[in-house]
Amino acid sequence: MFIIQRNTYFFVNLRTNFETMSNQNIKTVAVLTSGGDAPGMNAAIRAVVRTANSLGLECYGVREGYNGLIHGDFTKMGPRSVKNIINEGGTILKSARSSEFKTPEGRDKAFENCKKHNIDALVCIGGDGSFTGAKVFNEEYGLPVIGVPGTIDNDIFGTDNTIGYDTALNTAMEAIDKIRDTATSHNRVFFVEVMGRDAGFIALNSGIATGALDILIPEQKDSMEELFGTFRKAEKVGKSSSIVVVAEGEKLGNIYDLAKATKDEFPNFDIRVAVLGHIQRGGSPSCADRVLASKMGYGAVMGLVEGKSKVMVGVKSNRLIYTPIEEAIKKHNEIDKDLLKISEILAM
Amino acid sequence: MFIIQRNTYFFVNLRTNFETMSNQNIKTVAVLTSGGDAPGMNAAIRAVVRTANSLGLECYGVREGYNGLIHGDFTKMGPRSVKNIINEGGTILKSARSSEFKTPEGRDKAFENCKKHNIDALVCIGGDGSFTGAKVFNEEYGLPVIGVPGTIDNDIFGTDNTIGYDTALNTAMEAIDKIRDTATSHNRVFFVEVMGRDAGFIALNSGIATGALDILIPEQKDSMEELFGTFRKAEKVGKSSSIVVVAEGEKLGNIYDLAKATKDEFPNFDIRVAVLGHIQRGGSPSCADRVLASKMGYGAVMGLVEGKSKVMVGVKSNRLIYTPIEEAIKKHNEIDKDLLKISEILAM
Amino acid sequence: MFIIQRNTYFFVNLRTNFETMSNQNIKTVAVLTSGGDAPGMNAAIRAVVRTANSLGLECYGVREGYNGLIHGDFTKMGPRSVKNIINEGGTILKSARSSEFKTPEGRDKAFENCKKHNIDALVCIGGDGSFTGAKVFNEEYGLPVIGVPGTIDNDIFGTDNTIGYDTALNTAMEAIDKIRDTATSHNRVFFVEVMGRDAGFIALNSGIATGALDILIPEQKDSMEELFGTFRKAEKVGKSSSIVVVAEGEKLGNIYDLAKATKDEFPNFDIRVAVLGHIQRGGSPSCADRVLASKMGYGAVMGLVEGKSKVMVGVKSNRLIYTPIEEAIKKHNEIDKDLLKISEILAM
Amino acid sequence: MFIIQRNTYFFVNLRTNFETMSNQNIKTVAVLTSGGDAPGMNAAIRAVVRTANSLGLECYGVREGYNGLIHGDFTKMGPRSVKNIINEGGTILKSARSSEFKTPEGRDKAFENCKKHNIDALVCIGGDGSFTGAKVFNEEYGLPVIGVPGTIDNDIFGTDNTIGYDTALNTAMEAIDKIRDTATSHNRVFFVEVMGRDAGFIALNSGIATGALDILIPEQKDSMEELFGTFRKAEKVGKSSSIVVVAEGEKLGNIYDLAKATKDEFPNFDIRVAVLGHIQRGGSPSCADRVLASKMGYGAVMGLVEGKSKVMVGVKSNRLIYTPIEEAIKKHNEIDKDLLKISEILAM
Repeated sequence: MFIIQRNTYFFVNLRTNFETMSNQNIKTVAVLTSGGDAPGMNAAIRAVVRTANSLGLECYGVREGYNGLIHGDFTKMGPRSVKNIINEGGTILKSARSSEFKTPEGRDKAFENCKKHNIDALVCIGGDGSFTGAKVFNEEYGLPVIGVPGTIDNDIFGTDNTIGYDTALNTAMEAIDKIRDTATSHNRVFFVEVMGRDAGFIALNSGIATGALDILIPEQKDSMEELFGTFRKAEKVGKSSSIVVVAEGEKLGNIYDLAKATKDEFPNFDIRVAVLGHIQRGGSPSCADRVLASKMGYGAVMGLVEGKSKVMVGVKSNRLIYTPIEEAIKKHNEIDKDLLKISEILAM
Repeated sequence: MFIIQRNTYFFVNLRTNFETMSNQNIKTVAVLTSGGDAPGMNAAIRAVVRTANSLGLECYGVREGYNGLIHGDFTKMGPRSVKNIINEGGTILKSARSSEFKTPEGRDKAFENCKKHNIDALVCIGGDGSFTGAKVFNEEYGLPVIGVPGTIDNDIFGTDNTIGYDTALNTAMEAIDKIRDTATSHNRVFFVEVMGRDAGFIALNSGIATGALDILIPEQKDSMEELFGTFRKAEKVGKSSSIVVVAEGEKLGNIYDLAKATKDEFPNFDIRVAVLGHIQRGGSPSCADRVLASKMGYGAVMGLVEGKSKVMVGVKSNRLIYTPIEEAIKKHNEIDKDLLKISEILAM
Repeated sequence: MFIIQRNTYFFVNLRTNFETMSNQNIKTVAVLTSGGDAPGMNAAIRAVVRTANSLGLECYGVREGYNGLIHGDFTKMGPRSVKNIINEGGTILKSARSSEFKTPEGRDKAFENCKKHNIDALVCIGGDGSFTGAKVFNEEYGLPVIGVPGTIDNDIFGTDNTIGYDTALNTAMEAIDKIRDTATSHNRVFFVEVMGRDAGFIALNSGIATGALDILIPEQKDSMEELFGTFRKAEKVGKSSSIVVVAEGEKLGNIYDLAKATKDEFPNFDIRVAVLGHIQRGGSPSCADRVLASKMGYGAVMGLVEGKSKVMVGVKSNRLIYTPIEEAIKKHNEIDKDLLKISEILAM
Repeated sequence: MFIIQRNTYFFVNLRTNFETMSNQNIKTVAVLTSGGDAPGMNAAIRAVVRTANSLGLECYGVREGYNGLIHGDFTKMGPRSVKNIINEGGTILKSARSSEFKTPEGRDKAFENCKKHNIDALVCIGGDGSFTGAKVFNEEYGLPVIGVPGTIDNDIFGTDNTIGYDTALNTAMEAIDKIRDTATSHNRVFFVEVMGRDAGFIALNSGIATGALDILIPEQKDSMEELFGTFRKAEKVGKSSSIVVVAEGEKLGNIYDLAKATKDEFPNFDIRVAVLGHIQRGGSPSCADRVLASKMGYGAVMGLVEGKSKVMVGVKSNRLIYTPIEEAIKKHNEIDKDLLKISEILAM
């Protein structure tokens, strides 16, 4: 393996000498999960705890995200604390959004609690909102922080995939596969809403994977006329049933409005709406997510020990990389425009 | 095995002499699927076709339910027509509800088409609505009919389970298992709506299987006060997250209203609603459903050949039984009241 | 509901007055799992513990089957001890086969430990070997015992299904579905061995569910010539790939010998062997298994409280029934011979 | 997007002008699947056919790999020929290894058939053996060829993942998760063999994902003493059950020998062996595999139309890249050594 310097991120040589590491000043790390839960967060917690312990560090788990920092909800964790969780969805540390951490008073209490437990560094598993909190906290109090991208939305810059995304894709895909059985049996049109907030990753990939007739995502300007045109083309080639996958953040309109407008245009269509909802957040993580989370949890602790801070750990082409956290927050993982083209070509 | 006569149904001795059977008058059967699709319908079609063929009968598949009878959409089917479908959800014959079949003119056309294809008997796979059609058709034209209970709702009298019900239970359960991951990680209350129309079978069984705090079904009189009481009890024993499973036909109110009323009573609850929807109809059938459908498809043809008509085939304690179709229509599979008690005892 | 008296078992009216029950002498129950583990055992433990607690009884969990009785490995369990286990495979109480319990000395120690913990009754979740232990223990020391049939093999008399059987069927079926993809793509013949010891339930049902060409089970006399005849017939109708499902207890020979003999007869066949093995014992239980186990766990405690002993709880046509334990041990759940006929008819 | 030239491969700008493309000389492409089947091959076939058709090209499917080329088993395929296959495991074109194609006579016949059908280019979906055939064929007859890496083993240079690998990982992981239930319930040690021929990708990743105590792969020199040391360490930290994942190509010995040697060293261990076998090749492809295969199938046709030949299409960090086919054959996808370290750290 070799080190490649890039302007925005860099590959790390992990075959670092462990003896060197133990010279570092970090003796105790804390880990928390923040924001929406994602399958694989537990695998990441496990990796953080076991890697820290293997290096002789102490490790505390903080419950309910930044709220736990503020209210002092710290638990010391050893290798046995994280047994039998790699295959569990959700997060044993629980997660929450914290409005109190957005106030200086909240962060002050949080720092007091970190001092009380001799925390030398903080691992924050979550999305960009959580990273913003970590960044501000670091800037104010100097505590080293490292971000681990855990969100099903895959909207984080600096990594091929975020933890939970692959599992959510499979969940969405399996649900749409099931819906297709009914769509085909009844010659129906289904509008299926998938998660992803302002990002179309889940919609685009699950849509391609299920042979969706059309896929509507916020990153692309859509129009009802184009959608209607696609329906007409589908009728012409003899498709008797169709799935349209819609990202929850789609700008063209809410899924019920889209379905209604389509019914107005094609009164003979038998149209149904399905909102997949929260099933997409849960479930036992896929192999890819468990390995990714294990790698990132390991990479987070190794990064801290090597002196990194205010970075996010990521994985590109199976290699650990670190991106400055402000970049991970500001930039966005861009949708693969070619996939959009592929989705059109393969739909019919 | 032995034959037990009961007032409403009877066990059939299947070890009948096959030679005797070939003396029967039935030479050609038609099979259709009607009403909502259910996983396992394809396995039933396959069993009808292959059993008929093995007895030397011809078999026609009729597409889109009774509409196919009316419009003459008949296809001759042999053993190879149904290969590789036992594991597929939906129905290769497609299904539909037919308003035209409710008119004498519609049924007249249907009978003409049956005559044209020399159909001697009709196998109708569907729910009680479909059976009513079959019954009327038989009464008017004398064509032998037999019903096969295919619906995820399990609301048919005369069988332990209907085709598709077991698969739907597993689908609902797996979805709720996933939702629980998020509920637990965020200390949330989830109201989850499952299918079942006016029947609470899916709700009650999937609710017990997922450790739901409460289960609301149409068969039981519920009140908001009881539900609130359950929530209070759960808080007292320290449950920090909960699932309430609600049948779509619940009389107490629509799931959004229930959630809203709960939020009004417990303003600190973080409440979410999930409507599982059409995913419950699809998917590869479970082993139990494939075997049940195979048995019923076989039993339908054997029943016709043995001279049965206007009956529904069912399975109780793994044995094929036949119930007069009017009874299957009029009576209802009753919810197991003890399960309701069990659900209460086991919830906390 | 009504009570039907039969010679070998009887339906129980569960709408019993709870007040009456509390007059009983049973104040403390112990529960253990014994023999091979089966998915749903945890759901049964949970139901025993919560039902006992709801009736005001104390409940102890005994670890590692009868060994735990002998070595005094008892843990008091409350409703919270069994949270989040209904969806877990295996058994939190662990299971084992105990040779020591087969000795009078072993059972004597076991009884001493029961006395020490004031155990008034014992719930034994396991197979017929485990029931034999319970029966002898009861006969020697008079401690009330009740059996709960937990085994994937489904070879227990007195219940439609045993706990774990439905899950094992789905696991075997899904594995064979996957194998079929490869068989079809390469025009291969696969011999697939499934579990079930001396019982062919898993083989017969998973074989029907996956459209196996042939199914070899110990309950039926098979011959290589018949198998070869089936292969010849399959070639004639144009089947280019085949699955033969073989029960592990098949008398005709070990699966490798069967494959070899077939290769000798049909040198042009591309034959592979797959032994599904232990994956069939694990996994999150199906909805049917979770509900069945919940019902049986409840029924076991209710039975004890109502004064039953030396019986096994079972479920037939969704109703709880109790069978004398010696009958459950001596008789065997018989294979449905008609299913064998169905399997032949539907195979091609 | 931008083009980066590298010495061994290059990123391609897919936003190419479609009009330019139609000026190319390629009017008819053929596609085949060769070698062991892999989930996602059907998605790749679908993408090849639909992309070709969308560009106005004709497309032929060739059955049973190179054998079909030799025996003239060509079928013209349109967009409808590949409907409803994206979710199916295996390959509708069937696959085979062809010894005849290794002879000049065989290849000569193959080329004659290509000429007869006016084939201008060949898409070969398979592993490195299949690519060698394609390379030789191209060198002898000049027919443009492009390779699509389809194998569960992931041992191909020039792509992050091969088609089928992600699905196989999930299948292996789910199987081992199930085995762990039994291992834990009985305090057993399981040796689990997974596929991968001479490559340890499946073993290493599924082992990490399931928290295996140890993972034995051909890429790493293992010794029984190290393995025994790991067992001793595990006993010391109180692990009562363990999984050891072994790649089928492991050099240290066959899995039964490893188990036996371990039993000799630790006579009190309750040791079992599980060989996962062919279930790892089948099943509905994961979302990642369906999208990867769609992208590669598209990329294969686009590459041919853009004048590429004797290359393999791959995907790195979600981007299509092309690697000279001799490089794809000669080099090997190297195991991530850091993952080996991670697997050690996280095991206990």
